[in-house]
Amino acid sequence: MARNTVRRRVLRIRDDGTDYRPDTLAAEEPMEIRVGGRPLTVTMRTPGDDFDLAVGFLVSEGVLHSAAEVAGIRYCAGATSDGGNSYNVVDITLARGVRPPDASLERNFYTTSSCGLCGKASLDAVRTTAAWTVAEDPLRVRPALLSALPEQLRAAQRVFDSTGGLHAAGLFDPDGVLRCLREDVGRHNAVDKVIGDALRSGRLPLRGSVLMVSGRASFELVQKAVMAGIPALAAVSAPSSLAVDLANETGLTLVGFLRGSSMNVYSGVERVQRSGRLPVAERTATGG
Amino acid sequence: MARNTVRRRVLRIRDDGTDYRPDTLAAEEPMEIRVGGRPLTVTMRTPGDDFDLAVGFLVSEGVLHSAAEVAGIRYCAGATSDGGNSYNVVDITLARGVRPPDASLERNFYTTSSCGLCGKASLDAVRTTAAWTVAEDPLRVRPALLSALPEQLRAAQRVFDSTGGLHAAGLFDPDGVLRCLREDVGRHNAVDKVIGDALRSGRLPLRGSVLMVSGRASFELVQKAVMAGIPALAAVSAPSSLAVDLANETGLTLVGFLRGSSMNVYSGVERVQRSGRLPVAERTATGG
Repeated sequence: MARNTVRRRVLRIRDDGTDYRPDTLAAEEPMEIRVGGRPLTVTMRTPGDDFDLAVGFLVSEGVLHSAAEVAGIRYCAGATSDGGNSYNVVDITLARGVRPPDASLERNFYTTSSCGLCGKASLDAVRTTAAWTVAEDPLRVRPALLSALPEQLRAAQRVFDSTGGLHAAGLFDPDGVLRCLREDVGRHNAVDKVIGDALRSGRLPLRGSVLMVSGRASFELVQKAVMAGIPALAAVSAPSSLAVDLANETGLTLVGFLRGSSMNVYSGVERVQRSGRLPVAERTATGG
Repeated sequence: MARNTVRRRVLRIRDDGTDYRPDTLAAEEPMEIRVGGRPLTVTMRTPGDDFDLAVGFLVSEGVLHSAAEVAGIRYCAGATSDGGNSYNVVDITLARGVRPPDASLERNFYTTSSCGLCGKASLDAVRTTAAWTVAEDPLRVRPALLSALPEQLRAAQRVFDSTGGLHAAGLFDPDGVLRCLREDVGRHNAVDKVIGDALRSGRLPLRGSVLMVSGRASFELVQKAVMAGIPALAAVSAPSSLAVDLANETGLTLVGFLRGSSMNVYSGVERVQRSGRLPVAERTATGG
């Protein structure tokens, strides 16, 4: 728990009185990701699992696909004015033959937005760069399994418990067992940390898995799931329009508003196995 | 409501059955901001109030301070392959003598993260570029006034009502009257839209106002408030460590976990006027 929380004094105002007391906050610090010594991007993140975050970001960007493509990872010294190590700069050395990311200005624009300028163009870009597809993943899950994920995620969130202020991303296997949980002030970072952990332990692509996120489902989160080969993404809250469009394009199963036994399935409905008769619309859509 | 929501078919799973029905989603589309024809950044946003978003972003970046500094704003044609207008590219023409943003690659890194590489460096950067200070703002608010803000914000959120998926930012005057509300899939965008609206109507700096946001308070949101001269930021959820540090450095009043009649005041406690005796710690801190 070293640097992922900090303590600050706070004035608490309640109906029964006002007092000062120490409060635990989620730590937020910038981290620069370098590749071969060249700065690539800066992200505001909660310290911890920094190497996973760095390589996971490069998976999302289509640079990395396996652990063998990483020759080394280290914190850079010299990041502070006195030449010390702030532990806020991570440099990744790529293995021989691995193509480095395009760090041009224009590319950087699209990196940070993870998107092109119109929906169609961006969907094409993702489809082109993904090293594997999720459309044919044979994963099938029952609604009851999905309904159990939010509580599992919440129960495993240690830092949230103390701060109330962190996003979480959890990777579950087809039986609904939590395999990896990461927390961060940025939900994109939490997902990148999960993906980076998978890359470093040789588990990419993450076929047959379900990624659960604590908040909403944006375009970027769908993109990251697809780039890691994850066939299903579930969110506690709403998806955006472009998240649904990209999920449909790529064949990812996107579940939103996952609360209690209720949920909305926005794409890839064939992976959600229900008992009883299928609704008419689906039977028609599948030719049944 | 033209483009800020879209309809998609969704499979709804509930205890009492499963059906397909149309669902309303918050629209998410990329928007490129150009200055004098030069691309500056791309943000994923909910369409609507795009000009406010563009100029608000430039206020946050320290480029703009008054409406007179903007010579013109327009949507660019030629943004689609057939030469049409996607309404996703906004170009701002600066008035003569206004210094354009530094669009170098290195600058862009810091723009997108809105931060330097260590907390201290970034705080210095913000303090240097802000055209006005918030530390001396004489605003005083009672807890009861603050407690009323979340409900007002929520009541005014039209798009959230239909989608359940949008962040909101509301600007309130010292009497707790809502002056401007903006919604967006990105909370930074919602704040930039509020600030851009203020710039375009000649109301910067926003002295004596309270900015309320629907989610958490990050470093970037504190930074944006300070750059617009807003002396108080209130959030429904937790602040991050760097948000509190920057608020303390700049003299901004930062309120978190604003729920019912409860709240935590993380900085600038002198602006929150309570009845009765002050806690000992505060009397000591203020020499009283």
